[in-house]
Amino acid sequence: MTDLKRLLEMALRSEIDSRDIYQKASNMTKNALLKEKFNFLSGEEAKHKILIENIIKMKFPNEEIEIPESTEVPLPRITVSEKDPISKLLTQAMDAEKETSKFYANIAKQLDEENASLMQYLSSIEMSHYYFLQAERDLILKFENYDQYFEMMHVGP
Amino acid sequence: MTDLKRLLEMALRSEIDSRDIYQKASNMTKNALLKEKFNFLSGEEAKHKILIENIIKMKFPNEEIEIPESTEVPLPRITVSEKDPISKLLTQAMDAEKETSKFYANIAKQLDEENASLMQYLSSIEMSHYYFLQAERDLILKFENYDQYFEMMHVGP
Repeated sequence: MTDLKRLLEMALRSEIDSRDIYQKASNMTKNALLKEKFNFLSGEEAKHKILIENIIKMKFPNEEIEIPESTEVPLPRITVSEKDPISKLLTQAMDAEKETSKFYANIAKQLDEENASLMQYLSSIEMSHYYFLQAERDLILKFENYDQYFEMMHVGP
Repeated sequence: MTDLKRLLEMALRSEIDSRDIYQKASNMTKNALLKEKFNFLSGEEAKHKILIENIIKMKFPNEEIEIPESTEVPLPRITVSEKDPISKLLTQAMDAEKETSKFYANIAKQLDEENASLMQYLSSIEMSHYYFLQAERDLILKFENYDQYFEMMHVGP
């Protein structure tokens, strides 16, 4: 069984990777509204990283934090390229958020009450990101291209 | 049965009220991180209002939009004052998001496919806000005050 410190370090890697993905997604889309959503998610993951670092510092004072090169099982990797439709990236990000949420809920079980609350909070927030991404993905899949949706947002008098 | 245009106008009122609530919540909290979250939600609701206005314009061209003074059944009102704990506001905002989500899903049933997709999108996004607010509310209820959480976010070199 992987020890607690290693699990938390994997969580750090997961936040770094998620942040990278949302920044990449933000760069991939030309739509200002969707860009803003990805930037918000990217900012959220950056704050989660700080929160997890602080949990590690409290639980393992005086120990070096070693962030693994890549996430391991059970966290899925995102493998989209810039040629892929944005819906593919959103679907992979949804999977990653859902698995990260479960992963964090499991880490929470190994922590003291206060830190468990923080980890459970992160688990819940990642799940809210899942639903947020799902709504965007489903809309994109229904319209031929996302720009159509943005045109509708800008129709006006 | 309330007619479709009136339902959409109630949806507009709901977006205006939600935006006001999140702006009020943003003013009520001194915590920069929570403030940012409320500002994000407020911005989301402002964009939803534009989307709903555009649906009304497409469905009822040449008709005046009349926004009702207040939301009616089934949308709950938020009644917190500045003296109330932020958790109370979050709980009421959660209820409002959930009911609004159901309300929009019902409106979607009365729309053509394209507009129904947009309304279903709004319904799903409001539900994602519900989960987002729930995560924040649960964390706040677990810590004596939210500042404690923010202190933890800033521990460290």
